[in-house]
Parts: sequence; C-alpha cells; structure tokens
Amino acid sequence: MEKLLCGVDLGGTKLAAALFRQNGELVAREIVYDHHKSTSDEILLAVVELINTLLENNGYSSQNLLGIGVALAGHVSFREGKIITTSNFPITIRDFPLVAKLKSRFPDLKIVMDNDANAQAFGEYKYGAAKGYGSSVFVTVSTGIGGGIILDGKMIRGRSGTAGEVGHSIIDYDSDIQCTCGNYGCAMALASGLFFPSLYRWHLQKGMKSTIGITEESAGGMDGKKIEEGMKAGDPVCRKIVGDSARAVGVVLFNIHQMLNPELVVLGGGLMAFGKEYFDMIRREFLFHTHEMMAEEMEIKLAETGVNAGLLGAAALLME
Amino acid sequence: MEKLLCGVDLGGTKLAAALFRQNGELVAREIVYDHHKSTSDEILLAVVELINTLLENNGYSSQNLLGIGVALAGHVSFREGKIITTSNFPITIRDFPLVAKLKSRFPDLKIVMDNDANAQAFGEYKYGAAKGYGSSVFVTVSTGIGGGIILDGKMIRGRSGTAGEVGHSIIDYDSDIQCTCGNYGCAMALASGLFFPSLYRWHLQKGMKSTIGITEESAGGMDGKKIEEGMKAGDPVCRKIVGDSARAVGVVLFNIHQMLNPELVVLGGGLMAFGKEYFDMIRREFLFHTHEMMAEEMEIKLAETGVNAGLLGAAALLME
Repeated sequence: MEKLLCGVDLGGTKLAAALFRQNGELVAREIVYDHHKSTSDEILLAVVELINTLLENNGYSSQNLLGIGVALAGHVSFREGKIITTSNFPITIRDFPLVAKLKSRFPDLKIVMDNDANAQAFGEYKYGAAKGYGSSVFVTVSTGIGGGIILDGKMIRGRSGTAGEVGHSIIDYDSDIQCTCGNYGCAMALASGLFFPSLYRWHLQKGMKSTIGITEESAGGMDGKKIEEGMKAGDPVCRKIVGDSARAVGVVLFNIHQMLNPELVVLGGGLMAFGKEYFDMIRREFLFHTHEMMAEEMEIKLAETGVNAGLLGAAALLME
Repeated sequence: MEKLLCGVDLGGTKLAAALFRQNGELVAREIVYDHHKSTSDEILLAVVELINTLLENNGYSSQNLLGIGVALAGHVSFREGKIITTSNFPITIRDFPLVAKLKSRFPDLKIVMDNDANAQAFGEYKYGAAKGYGSSVFVTVSTGIGGGIILDGKMIRGRSGTAGEVGHSIIDYDSDIQCTCGNYGCAMALASGLFFPSLYRWHLQKGMKSTIGITEESAGGMDGKKIEEGMKAGDPVCRKIVGDSARAVGVVLFNIHQMLNPELVVLGGGLMAFGKEYFDMIRREFLFHTHEMMAEEMEIKLAETGVNAGLLGAAALLME
C-alpha cells in the first residue's frame, strides 16, 4: 500500500498534524492549541503525541508513513535539522535539534524540517500554483513577509537556510519607517500586517483623517481584517495602507524578477484576502517597473494550497 | 595534447580573443578596435577572423580547441545562443543567432555565449575568488552594475537569461534619481559610473561646493577616473558620490544576502579601483544592515581574474 506523508505545522498559536496521500490528498488532520509548555522537550513531546493520536485515531501506525515533514514558524537549519530560533512563540526555542529528537522516536522514518515559507513554497511547487514550473518564487504576505525559491525542482536554501527571505530586503532605504529587524524601508515594514497599527497611527499623525473613527489610541487594533473592512468602507487611511502595501510588494516582485528572472511568482499569505483589487495593484506596480526589461513575461499567480498550506508544504518536503 | 579554450570578449569598444589552458593559464591574446562594421554579419566576420588570426599566429588550428566561449556586452539568450540586444555598441545588434553562425564556421567545436557579467562570474568561480565555494554571487560595479549567480557549480540564468541583473533592483523607491531604465532609485542610478556626471551636477544644484573647480557645465566629464582623483584630492562632492555609491552597493549586497544567502559575494568592475576605502565602506554598510539576520557570515572578496576577466570568463563557460 502507498505510504502516507505526515505533515506537521508548528507555530506560535497552533500545532497541527495531517496525513496526506502522495498526490497531496488530505486523509486526516488534528489540531491542538495547548502545545506550548515550559521547555523545548515538552513541545517535542506534544508533537510526538499529536502524531501518535493522528495515526491511532485513523487506524494507522508509523509503518504506514513515508516520513514526517515539519514546517516551523522560525529560522531553521535544514541541513542540521535544527531549530535556530522560533518566531512569535510564547517561549522562544533556540538551537534545538528537533529532527534528531523526532528520529529517536520514529527511527525508521525520513524526517525533515524547514521554515514555513519554504514548506509552503514547496507545497505550491508539488501540488499547487507552481506545479510544472521550472523556476518559481513563493512570496507570503501576512503578519510578516516570507518567501521560498525553487529552481529546477530544488529549494534554494542558501548557506544558513535563510535564502528566500525577501521580507527584509530593503526597497526604500531613505524611508522613515523602521522594521523590527532594525532597518528602515524593508518590505516588511512597508507592506505587512504587523505594521498596520503603526502605519495607521503614522498617517493620522501626518494629518490624514480616519472615516471609521480610528484614533491614535485605537490604531493598535488595526489588524489585516480591520484594514480590509476599512478599505471596503472607503476609509482613506486603510486605502492608503493597502495601496502602499501593494506598491511595496510589487517592487519586491520586480527585484525578484531582476535577480532571479523566474517563470513564476506565487503570492500567498493572509493579506491576499484583500482580494482582486490588491492583487491587481501588486501586478500593476510590478509591470510599471519592468519597462523593456522583461523579454518573457513573469507570471504572477495566487497560491492554491489553501488553509492546509503549511501542513501540505511540510508533507511535500518529503517528496523533495 | 590538452585542448585549449578560446575566449572571445565582444564589447562596444573592443573585440578580444584569447587562448587559455584548461587550468586558466593564458596562452595568447589578440585585440582589435575596428570590429564595428555596418551589419551584424560583418561583426560576426570580424570575430571569425580574429579567432583565425589568433590560432595562426600561435601555430594552432581549430582542432586544438575544446571550443569557443563568447562574453557579450548585452542581453543574451544562453539557451538559444542568440544576442537579444547589445549595450553601448555603435550599431545595436538585435535578435542575432551568433552561436549558430559561429557553429557554421567551426562545426566541430562546442560554442557557447553569455553576457559578460555571467561570464566573469563563472570565470571567478572556475579560476578566481569564488573557486571552491558552493554558492556565490558576482557583482560588477563599473559604468553600470551587473551580476551573476552561481549555485552548486551552476550559473543561474533564469527564464530569459537575465537572472543576476542586480543593477536595476530598486533599493530607494522614493528617490529623485532616475536611471536610464526609467525607474527611480535603482542601484545603478545611485552607484554606477554612468551616473557620476549627473550626480555631480545634482549635488552642485543642491548647494554643495566643488573644491576641484568642477561646474555644472564641466560635470559631464566626471568619469570614474576623475571621481577617484577628486576623492583623493578631498573634493567633498566626489567623496559624497563615492560614499553614496558604497552605501547603495552595500544595500544591494544585503538584499542578495536576504534573497539568496550565498557563502560569498565577489566584487569586481572598474570602480574597485577606488581602493580599500571604498571596499571597506561597502562591507561596513552591508554589515550595518545585517543586525542579527546573519547566522553565518557572508564573505565579501575582490575579484581576482584581473584584466582578462571577460576573456577568461568566456573561456570558463566551456567548462560549465
């Protein structure tokens, strides 16, 4: 019988695990929200327990698996199978050899781990919008901005596993807007959800008027969902923020085109919920910059792997 | 007997051809400056004649060659062996199948062509500063800015052969400074020799004083050599231009690090003649932006293949 792929999505809010057939079809899924304990080893235990629960609840054992793929919200050394550091976890995990630790629990299985953007990129390549493309770059625009590069069917990870981190690339170096990374004018600070509260406040300070009653005090609550609602209600600050975000993402796409000249860029992440207008603005901004510098058009597509993108991406890593 | 490599460097000012041993050692070289005729086929003829002269003058025939590699100042379709367009040629060549045309003259030889930045990048990988590195990006800062990416011993060319064109990546999108490509704030406009005259003029208009007697009228003559002299003479405008150039190149290196996380960046091109101070400024600017975003340090080295970089790079393409 065909072996199944087990994908694990280990994030700051939830821990999910799922079984997929090798064609990407979902077989079963489990999610928990109480996996954050006080030590890295306790989180490991939560992962092992969730996998075992998933197998038992569906009548499988580890012998039915080809392997386990883990997508982590954080910085991963793929080569060493180590968590270098986590992003937005209640307790930051540092320098933790998760792959070796999982291997000691599941000694007969192939076990791999990568950051969630790389995993989603590979999921899109194997099962989604990038299937069949010789070269593609995945860009996720969400709370932050991440990415993954696939050339000739291979993930490009770079020396330390951080290749594809287009979010912190600098596109406006004389900008007043500072990112959490310390730099000014990187794409994340100009375009991602994490900065919507401070951007809203900044525009109010510069004299823009909110038509949805947001003040400098209440601007802290302006997440992607609220910005989307404000945009649809015609609030000029929300529209400005969304427009600037699209502009920044469009420039990132242009820089990707200049640097890698891929066949395709796949756009994913929560902000794609802004809809077709946002997507079209990004595309227009990209095309505006290409002038005569594009011999063959770079395609831009929306991600297709949907709500299970992280899980499917993690599983897809086993097929690399 | 070991077959020789023939490298051809076809540029706007000169046409050069050279023979190298497979270890990169120069055997013989010929250069002409009168290769620009009225048609593409006449330029082809000049290339063929120069190769034959080079062989005859040194007692060789085409049977002594492994092949012919061509480095072109322009945009090349490596896959199709075609010149898409040339840069700074008296007569622009468009859509010209140079590889097929050379093949009809030298039917038994391997013939390849790429743009000069990619060729130099591969030359540095095969014989220079990038030798032995698993991943490297070559950046040439000269009249313009170009580059080439090598991962696992392979040139990354992208869909249409324009991968590595870091020069037109946008790093300061609200800049007032427009590039010949039409965009504002791309690296070339902020850092390369082509823009020194307009940058000098721009700084004078903004109120800076030249201490070497340059006026808005005479600023047109400020090439790299004059800027270097002015910098050494302490002219504040020259120092500002060189500092800003280093800053822009440093940001490009940071973006390369974020996007590709290579082991090494090799810096080449005419502006490296500015010397150690310029190189150190670039490196400092790069490090200034990395903060905690660099798990393992990206090396930055000067190109090593020297005055024959284009020729040796062209020849190196035969060893790909």
